[in-house]
Amino acid sequence: MTRAYNFNAGPAALPLEVLQKAQEEIVDFKGIGMSIMEVSHRSKEYEAVNDETQQLLLELLELPAGYKVLFLQGGASTQFAMLPMNLLTAGKVGSYVMTGSWAEKAIQEAKLIGETHIAASSKEGVLHIPALSEIEIPENAAYLHVTSNETIAGTQYQEFPDTGSIPLVSDMSSDILSRRIDASKFSLIYAGAQKNLGPSGVTIVVAKEDLFNNAPKTIPTMLRYSTYLKNNSLYNTPPVYSIYMVNLVLKWVKEQGGVAAVEKANREKTDLIYNVLDNSGGFYEGLAQKDSRSIMNVTFKLQTEELEKEFLALAKKNGFVGLGGHRSVGHLRASTYNAVPYASCKALVDLLDEFKRTHG
Amino acid sequence: MTRAYNFNAGPAALPLEVLQKAQEEIVDFKGIGMSIMEVSHRSKEYEAVNDETQQLLLELLELPAGYKVLFLQGGASTQFAMLPMNLLTAGKVGSYVMTGSWAEKAIQEAKLIGETHIAASSKEGVLHIPALSEIEIPENAAYLHVTSNETIAGTQYQEFPDTGSIPLVSDMSSDILSRRIDASKFSLIYAGAQKNLGPSGVTIVVAKEDLFNNAPKTIPTMLRYSTYLKNNSLYNTPPVYSIYMVNLVLKWVKEQGGVAAVEKANREKTDLIYNVLDNSGGFYEGLAQKDSRSIMNVTFKLQTEELEKEFLALAKKNGFVGLGGHRSVGHLRASTYNAVPYASCKALVDLLDEFKRTHG
Repeated sequence: MTRAYNFNAGPAALPLEVLQKAQEEIVDFKGIGMSIMEVSHRSKEYEAVNDETQQLLLELLELPAGYKVLFLQGGASTQFAMLPMNLLTAGKVGSYVMTGSWAEKAIQEAKLIGETHIAASSKEGVLHIPALSEIEIPENAAYLHVTSNETIAGTQYQEFPDTGSIPLVSDMSSDILSRRIDASKFSLIYAGAQKNLGPSGVTIVVAKEDLFNNAPKTIPTMLRYSTYLKNNSLYNTPPVYSIYMVNLVLKWVKEQGGVAAVEKANREKTDLIYNVLDNSGGFYEGLAQKDSRSIMNVTFKLQTEELEKEFLALAKKNGFVGLGGHRSVGHLRASTYNAVPYASCKALVDLLDEFKRTHG
Repeated sequence: MTRAYNFNAGPAALPLEVLQKAQEEIVDFKGIGMSIMEVSHRSKEYEAVNDETQQLLLELLELPAGYKVLFLQGGASTQFAMLPMNLLTAGKVGSYVMTGSWAEKAIQEAKLIGETHIAASSKEGVLHIPALSEIEIPENAAYLHVTSNETIAGTQYQEFPDTGSIPLVSDMSSDILSRRIDASKFSLIYAGAQKNLGPSGVTIVVAKEDLFNNAPKTIPTMLRYSTYLKNNSLYNTPPVYSIYMVNLVLKWVKEQGGVAAVEKANREKTDLIYNVLDNSGGFYEGLAQKDSRSIMNVTFKLQTEELEKEFLALAKKNGFVGLGGHRSVGHLRASTYNAVPYASCKALVDLLDEFKRTHG
């Protein structure tokens, strides 16, 4: 079986070992005569998956006591609204750092709920993360919201602001568990699973437990964080299979040596690619400002649209997938999430070298 | 491999052939070198799954032109709120037929959104569906909401009301595609997938297209039906694998001979069980009123709690799963969804016979 060189931006590559384990268990989970998809979410089999997955995530994020993991649905796009519905109470303002398409989507939803504020913003036309010193947070901020990695721009925070008593909140959909961070700086982290955590279909919310109880009682039950907290994410039927897959992926991360080992691999993978871009004499050009480069999404360009089309055609012919840039930015992008093997990145740089040799 | 006799209420049994097909394809989908979980939701591979699944559902529901299928997340519990958020506009009232736990949950969420009304109600302490003649719909009703099958009570509408120009809406989570119905009577049908359609993680909404455009622009993007309609359910990343599984299940329904064949099988399965209950001389007793009996969830009891415990212990020993009643009703329940084989129901009646012989 030939595996594609999968650089999809999300849904994205999963570890082959995880898919093989899933294949082995999909018809008969641990000898119970049923698939994990066929058991009750209130069965001991599923509750073990539910609880273990929460524990694994807390452990890999190295969080102190007091944090809880919730499993929700609807992706980060639903969190853009749920967050202010739960936390943006009267008299408060939702403060956002504007870094690209995803930060923009987050604030647009918040505007439907309450008052918002821009704490800092990328310069027009530049793909970068603003300096932390530029961030201004109003005293009545309900939270400061950051987008730790902008999948489309290929930019990533290298460090995070200190927000004192104001809760720091992050959309970490595209870089959760990609590197060691001090997760305890954050009051709430949310992430769609389909980049680093598993397949699509489940959204992770990790937060300080006391943050979950501020929601107005007038919002629908399924949109209150407290509903998930009180019911161990079992108020209604959860997306069982997606959570099971996250469980397998988190175990895989541990087997790699944990987040530190995964981070080392991610840096090696992206160093390889950025080096080729930077040493191409201008044939290739990285799109993100160097001090804001992402270790998850490498955005780059060639000198003409025609060359880019030719490159993409050659890449396709050679078994590469997902190298086209997002339609809003164009050009090229290689997403190098945790499960993308070093060998895929090596194959990519070999292809970049070959294409430059034949077209430079 | 021994299969459990799976009578789970949901998540529930899936067809073995479907699980085996999923197993075959989970690592490498149609030779593309990736799992369907690893492809972009904007790829031609996934768009084909997305479109085909919608078509299959429209075809199996025998719907005329003008209906659209949407894929959402969050289960029927989220629809309880989304429905009134989208359709319960100012000056209108959401009218509900109260038939049990699920109808009750639906109206509770609607009360958070707008004005509600009870169109008819089951008699206190009786598990039944009210006569259609009892249903009173106010002139300013935004819709009449029914719960076509009450999973917990084991009751099911045998026919549906004519509501004239008032949109008829149904939660069909636990009996969609279990029997032929005139689906064109309904303006909107919603269903969590995890009973008859596939695994948990995706919610189906089927509705007349013109109904989707009434939503106030103030509600969050992900909670507007129009967002899904305009974007072919691809506004954000959908729950790809759950939808892929629904695709396989719908093809399986077609291979069985379509909904008519599945209905025939469901009636044979439940006739078998109800006959044993009714001819047990009072040893077993069905909980639902006979004219309201469900062909999806058979609720029944024994004469003492002790006997029920003994029966459940014997059933467990013999490879039966999911026969305990819901905690709110107690007693026993056998859920006989489409994918539960006749052989499982035959094994159940044999067990019921044996238990009566040894304990009667």
